[in-house]
Amino acid sequence: MNYFSSDFKLGILGGGQLGKMLLNDTRKFDIYTCVLDASNEAPCKIASNEFHLGDLMDYDAVYNFGKQVDVLTYEIENVNTNALEALEKAGVKVYPSSKTLKTIQNKAKQKLFYVDHNLPTAPFSRFAYTSEIEDALNHGGLSLPFVWKSTQFGYDGTGVKIVKSVADLDGLPNVECIAETLVPFKNELAVIVARNVSGETKTFPVVEMEFHPEANQVEYVICPARIPDAIAKKAIDVALKTSEAFNHVGLLAVEMFLTQDDTILINEVAPRPHNSGHQTIEASYTSQFEQHLRAILNLPLGRTDSKVGGVMVNLVGAEGFSGNVVYQNIDAIMNLNGVTPHIYGKKQTRPFRKMGHVTIVNEDLNEARKVAEQVKKTIKVISE
Amino acid sequence: MNYFSSDFKLGILGGGQLGKMLLNDTRKFDIYTCVLDASNEAPCKIASNEFHLGDLMDYDAVYNFGKQVDVLTYEIENVNTNALEALEKAGVKVYPSSKTLKTIQNKAKQKLFYVDHNLPTAPFSRFAYTSEIEDALNHGGLSLPFVWKSTQFGYDGTGVKIVKSVADLDGLPNVECIAETLVPFKNELAVIVARNVSGETKTFPVVEMEFHPEANQVEYVICPARIPDAIAKKAIDVALKTSEAFNHVGLLAVEMFLTQDDTILINEVAPRPHNSGHQTIEASYTSQFEQHLRAILNLPLGRTDSKVGGVMVNLVGAEGFSGNVVYQNIDAIMNLNGVTPHIYGKKQTRPFRKMGHVTIVNEDLNEARKVAEQVKKTIKVISE
Repeated sequence: MNYFSSDFKLGILGGGQLGKMLLNDTRKFDIYTCVLDASNEAPCKIASNEFHLGDLMDYDAVYNFGKQVDVLTYEIENVNTNALEALEKAGVKVYPSSKTLKTIQNKAKQKLFYVDHNLPTAPFSRFAYTSEIEDALNHGGLSLPFVWKSTQFGYDGTGVKIVKSVADLDGLPNVECIAETLVPFKNELAVIVARNVSGETKTFPVVEMEFHPEANQVEYVICPARIPDAIAKKAIDVALKTSEAFNHVGLLAVEMFLTQDDTILINEVAPRPHNSGHQTIEASYTSQFEQHLRAILNLPLGRTDSKVGGVMVNLVGAEGFSGNVVYQNIDAIMNLNGVTPHIYGKKQTRPFRKMGHVTIVNEDLNEARKVAEQVKKTIKVISE
Repeated sequence: MNYFSSDFKLGILGGGQLGKMLLNDTRKFDIYTCVLDASNEAPCKIASNEFHLGDLMDYDAVYNFGKQVDVLTYEIENVNTNALEALEKAGVKVYPSSKTLKTIQNKAKQKLFYVDHNLPTAPFSRFAYTSEIEDALNHGGLSLPFVWKSTQFGYDGTGVKIVKSVADLDGLPNVECIAETLVPFKNELAVIVARNVSGETKTFPVVEMEFHPEANQVEYVICPARIPDAIAKKAIDVALKTSEAFNHVGLLAVEMFLTQDDTILINEVAPRPHNSGHQTIEASYTSQFEQHLRAILNLPLGRTDSKVGGVMVNLVGAEGFSGNVVYQNIDAIMNLNGVTPHIYGKKQTRPFRKMGHVTIVNEDLNEARKVAEQVKKTIKVISE
C-alpha cells in the first residue's frame, strides 16, 4: 500500500497532545490523517485532514470512524476495544492490536500477563472491590503498606494511592483494584521499544524519571539515564522481552523500577508515544512520533540513539489556578541555552493538568539538567 | 503582546512548502495562524487555523487579509508590496518590511543596494529591455559571456541564463533585466542570518551548495561548508553586514560566490526561510523556521550551532514525468542511516518541480554526504 498517496488514510483515536505531536510528523510524510475525539477544542483539530467528533468509549463512534481508514492507531488507552476487535475482523489494520490494548487497559490483567510471561513485576493481589481489601488486611492475606491501583481508567496519577493505614482506604472508589507490594526503589526508568509490522525492533535509550511528589506525574525525564551500562542493558532486555511477549506493533513504553538491590521490575506499560519520550523530538535521530509512524506503516525504523543529551520538563497547571491559561515567563525560558517549549494548545488550565512540556538539549547532559531546573523555577502555568 | 494566546494572529502570505514547515513550528508554540494563498491545494491548507484563498499580487486580497492579523510575514517574494506598505501604515507589524522586500523583489534594485552599502557583489549593467543588450554588446559597453537575469519574478532557476553568444539572447523575454559579469567561482555558499525586532542577531553556520547543472536548482546543501575557518568568517561577516544594511527583521538567507581568489561576492538574498536552511530541522539546535518565528515575534533567538553534520537533498520531479506524483523507493531511503524525507504534499509533479527534500544527518559529515548520494540515486519522483 502506498502511504504517500491520498488514497491512504491513517486514523488516530484521541486528539490530545500525543496525537498532535504525532500529526506533526505525518506532515513530513504528507500522510492523510483522520482524528476522532470527543472535544471540539482538541489540540488535533487542526493539522489533521479530517477531524471527527465522537466518544472514544462508544462502540459505534469508534467502529464507524475506523471503517473509513486503512490503518488505525490511538494516542490514549481509554478506547472501546470491542470496536477495535470488530474493525480488525473487518480488515482494518489496528496497531497496536485490540488484544494488546485489552490486556493493558486492565491493570490486573496487565500484571497477570507479566506473571504468565515470566516478566519481572512487583507482587500484587487483585480485588473485585476496594471494600474487600480491609478483610484481606484483617485476615493477614495482605499487609500494609501497599499501593492501591484501580484496574481501569487510571491516568495522570488518578487511580493510584499509597495506602499506609486502613484510614487511607477511605474515599477510594469501590471498584476492581489491585494491591501491589510497595517497592522501595532507587530510580524509575523507562524504555520505549519500537516494533514494526515485520517485527523489526529498536529501543530508545533508557531514561530516568523524576516524579512530582504530590501529583504523581513525571517532573523531569533525563536521557540517557545516569546509571551503569550493565543496569541499562538489563532494563533494555526486560523492555524487549515485554514487546516480544505482546507481539507488539508500534511503540511500547515500558516503565520500570530499579530496586535497592538493582532488580528491574516492570511498573506499567503504555502502547503509544509516551511522556518519557518527548525529548526524542530534539535529542534523538528519530523522534518517538516518527518512529511510531514508521512502525505502524511497516516502514524501516529510524536510528534511536541521541544526537545530544536531553532533559524534559512537564508544564503542568500551577496549584490554585484554573481558567484561561497564561504561560508566565515563557520568553524568559526561551532565552536559556537549548530550550524548546511545546505548548499543547489546551485553552483551560487546572492544577497539575498537562499543558505542555519543555525540552532542554545540550552536548553536556549535566548542563541540560541545570538549565531544566532554571526552566522549572522560571515558567509558571497560571490563569488570566 | 501575548503571542501564546488566541487573541494573537500571525498571518503568512504564501501557502507553499516553506509556509508549511513554518506552520509546523507554530504548532509547538500554539500560535494562531492565518494563511493566504491562491491555490486551494496549497500544502498550508491544513495545519493553519484559517486558510484564505487569494492572489498574493492583488492589492485588495493582501490588504484585506493582512488587516485581520497582528504580525504578517511571507514565505515567497512575489507579494504585493504596496499592500504591505499600507498595512504597515495601518499598524500591522510586517516582517520583513515592505521596504526590504521592494528592494529585493527587483534584482537591479537589489544589486544597486549592495553597491550603495559597499557590500561585495559581481559587476553588472541594468537594461530596461533585453532588446537593448545587443546594442551594448555591439558598442562595447558589455562583453560576452555574462549572466542574464530578469529583474523580477525569477524563481527556481527561471529568469536566469548564461549568455555565451548573441544567439543565446534569442527567446529571452524582452523585460527589465541585468547583465552580470560571469564570475568563475570555486564554491557557492550561503549564510542565514536571524535578526529579531530588538536587533538581536544570530547566524547559522556557512553552508555549501552544489547545484544541478541544467535545472540551476540546489541539489545538495552541506552543513557546515567544508571550507577554511578564515573564509567562513569572511562569509559570515558579509552576511551580517547585509542583514544590518537592511535593518532586517526575520531570516535573511544570503547566497554568495567564493571566487578563485577567495573573494566573497553576494549573489542574491531571500528575506525568508530558505532551501539552504532545511537541514537545520534535524541538524541544528534551532530550526530556521522556529528561528524565523522567534525573530518576527521578538522572542529571544535560539542556538544556531549544529548538533550533528547535515546534508540536504532536494526532491525534484524527474525529467519526462508529469501528473499525479509517486515517490519511488521512498521506503528504501528510509532504511539508510539518519535519513528523514520531507514530502511537501503537492499532488502534481513536473520536471524539476520541488516536491520535497531529504535530510541526512550524521556525527560524521562525510558519512552523511555519502548517504546523500545513495539517497539521490535511489529515490525518484515520478508520476503514476
